[in-house]
Amino acid sequence: MTDKQPLSTEPYKGVHDYYPLDWARVSSVFETIRRTLRLYGFEEYQASPLERAELYESKTSEEIVSQQTYTFTDRGDRRVTLRPEMTPTLARMVAGRRRELVYPLRWFSIGNRFRYERPQKGRSREFYQADVDIIGIEGAKAEGEAVVMAYEILRAFGAENKDFRIRMNSRSLINAAGEALGLSPLEVTEYLSVIDRKDKMSAEDFETARAVYRKNGTDPLELIEARTNESVDAVYQEFMELIEALKERGMDNVEFDPTIARGFLYYTGLVFEVFDTNPENPRALLGGGRYDGLVALYGGEQVPAVGFAIGVETLIDFLTTHNLLPQAVSGARLFIGTPTENDIASAQVLADSLRKQGVSVLVNVSGKSLGDQIKEAVKRGIPYFAAYGENEATSGSLKLKTLESGQEDAVSKDELVSIIVR
Amino acid sequence: MTDKQPLSTEPYKGVHDYYPLDWARVSSVFETIRRTLRLYGFEEYQASPLERAELYESKTSEEIVSQQTYTFTDRGDRRVTLRPEMTPTLARMVAGRRRELVYPLRWFSIGNRFRYERPQKGRSREFYQADVDIIGIEGAKAEGEAVVMAYEILRAFGAENKDFRIRMNSRSLINAAGEALGLSPLEVTEYLSVIDRKDKMSAEDFETARAVYRKNGTDPLELIEARTNESVDAVYQEFMELIEALKERGMDNVEFDPTIARGFLYYTGLVFEVFDTNPENPRALLGGGRYDGLVALYGGEQVPAVGFAIGVETLIDFLTTHNLLPQAVSGARLFIGTPTENDIASAQVLADSLRKQGVSVLVNVSGKSLGDQIKEAVKRGIPYFAAYGENEATSGSLKLKTLESGQEDAVSKDELVSIIVR
Repeated sequence: MTDKQPLSTEPYKGVHDYYPLDWARVSSVFETIRRTLRLYGFEEYQASPLERAELYESKTSEEIVSQQTYTFTDRGDRRVTLRPEMTPTLARMVAGRRRELVYPLRWFSIGNRFRYERPQKGRSREFYQADVDIIGIEGAKAEGEAVVMAYEILRAFGAENKDFRIRMNSRSLINAAGEALGLSPLEVTEYLSVIDRKDKMSAEDFETARAVYRKNGTDPLELIEARTNESVDAVYQEFMELIEALKERGMDNVEFDPTIARGFLYYTGLVFEVFDTNPENPRALLGGGRYDGLVALYGGEQVPAVGFAIGVETLIDFLTTHNLLPQAVSGARLFIGTPTENDIASAQVLADSLRKQGVSVLVNVSGKSLGDQIKEAVKRGIPYFAAYGENEATSGSLKLKTLESGQEDAVSKDELVSIIVR
Repeated sequence: MTDKQPLSTEPYKGVHDYYPLDWARVSSVFETIRRTLRLYGFEEYQASPLERAELYESKTSEEIVSQQTYTFTDRGDRRVTLRPEMTPTLARMVAGRRRELVYPLRWFSIGNRFRYERPQKGRSREFYQADVDIIGIEGAKAEGEAVVMAYEILRAFGAENKDFRIRMNSRSLINAAGEALGLSPLEVTEYLSVIDRKDKMSAEDFETARAVYRKNGTDPLELIEARTNESVDAVYQEFMELIEALKERGMDNVEFDPTIARGFLYYTGLVFEVFDTNPENPRALLGGGRYDGLVALYGGEQVPAVGFAIGVETLIDFLTTHNLLPQAVSGARLFIGTPTENDIASAQVLADSLRKQGVSVLVNVSGKSLGDQIKEAVKRGIPYFAAYGENEATSGSLKLKTLESGQEDAVSKDELVSIIVR
């Protein structure tokens, strides 16, 4: 080993190492999402990031996703992809047990996804997402529930309505407008793709691109706005009912936005995205929609499905901006200092009795001075310190030091837990 | 989409799909491990499964591991490996911040690891492990603490000492014996590899293989047993002190076993494995040891380190055998039935007030009869059912049905929480 150059300590390009405090921060975000979803009866599932490559080659994914997968051939000549998104896996799993499952399914999964793209701020080759889906309910009822869950998750972090906007659109509406104008389904798909790239184009380029889809001077967006066509108006009115119902529920930050397109080709009805109202954070916090055709790719009948994915990094940016990121702690609650090495054994006994009561305790086992042990506890971010030596063992009384304030209180062993416990 | 053959619903070969109940079972095992470690001040870290391939090519890993990695070349011509084990990543991360970290580190990580091997019972291409490590403490103090943590984790699941054996050995002892016999370091390494494969050979083949390392009729194992050499005896006595200290702590299932070798070449002192006492489950539940040289591969001084990894699947087998696997629940705690569609809105209001108090609630939104709603609740494994219609809204009293027993109790809305809460 010694005759070699040292290895680099860098992680693989474009992925992150999560040191304990970083991971505590991410985990606490996962926990709030998880807790909120469970209160509504959502159940967590999981799958391997290794997927058969064909799942992403069925032209249902966003083009950019299929172009950016990590795909390789295994030693058994199978083509494997590291999942770039969860929805195809979910559809596969639902299809695999479609007869045994109890519908509607309310499922979620939190985990890492992989995309081979140029690393840049907010874009990593590995990123965490929470996927939330409702499967087996048709129409506005499930669509409303999906939007409510997105809303409730953000509210659970303490976000207020003024902090974010929920922009909703309907593929059905665009399809109806396209049909009314005599556009082919392919043209409507192309048109959606133009809308989806709107923010990445100049206003002039956007106008040029959309002009191709104008019939008699009107394109689908304009027809939706004018609502001069009866069938377009019917779909519009129905969609407005959904939006009104959400507003009545107190969600006054919901709005109709016909320019929300979403890149994935598999959406069939509702599409929606949630944005920070702070313009400095322009990326969507989360997005989703209805994708009734996806499960049927694996055989059998169509299964109604609606869901969304939250990007955890974007969410953390949002929470940080609005000062809502939970305070992360990764370490123990109490540091028991040991004046001499002979005190370690009895300090461990005390520590074990506190642990049985649910307190996280670290015992000094080094030969450091008490002063240095206190310094160590501070560096670790542990809130309380108490030395436990022969005197304390005899008297049963400890000096409990609150490290942030420096305050010291004499407490008995029995009182310790009630003071320290989070 | 419709002109294609349906896609297969199978996951990629050798990995598992975790449907909600499966995942609830695995998660509850993670949670017990996590809670136990946190009580002792251990902090969780995480890293991407994508690692630079060179981490596993430094000849420190078990040969079988480096032969069984998933290694591929990315679009930027970098060689990437899906991590087959966590220790090299941990060493890399520690080395990367070696000056900033507060020692000793007590770190753990729970996650998936990947090995390309033939799928068979208990061996998947993706498997979950918990890695637990103590970094920055030399000698028996840290080694004892590592073994104690392994013990406490199993105890936290309710395992008793009679259910498992902790077999401990010391590479230092084998090294001392090899040196005393005049074997070269390479010969000692080869000899260790023979011991490691003992259970995979016939008794005859084992004797033939070890005979190569006999000097004047004695091989290292025999010298350790005889203890006729002073320096071997000194190392032996020191190691016995560690074992005695653990026994005094109540761990009467600890034993010295000089045939515990462990495959990884990076171990430098203690090595240990934990086995089910039920002979039908012969694979090690967990294993680990001291690996003082690993961090220094990334430059700088040696850093003392000791740790172990628990295989979650093997642990689940153990817990199942001993009837200790926690009961997994993935769904809601209460199903609120709605007699008519008009009742859904007020049922949602009741549900929201219960959720605010921490109860997981599912509200029926289908048009099913109440009888079918009860059947659905049973199928989902939800313990309680209560219908909430106009009568209940007016009276404020509900009939709460305990689905397992079929018992019905009239309870007020306010009493619900205290009965239902887990």
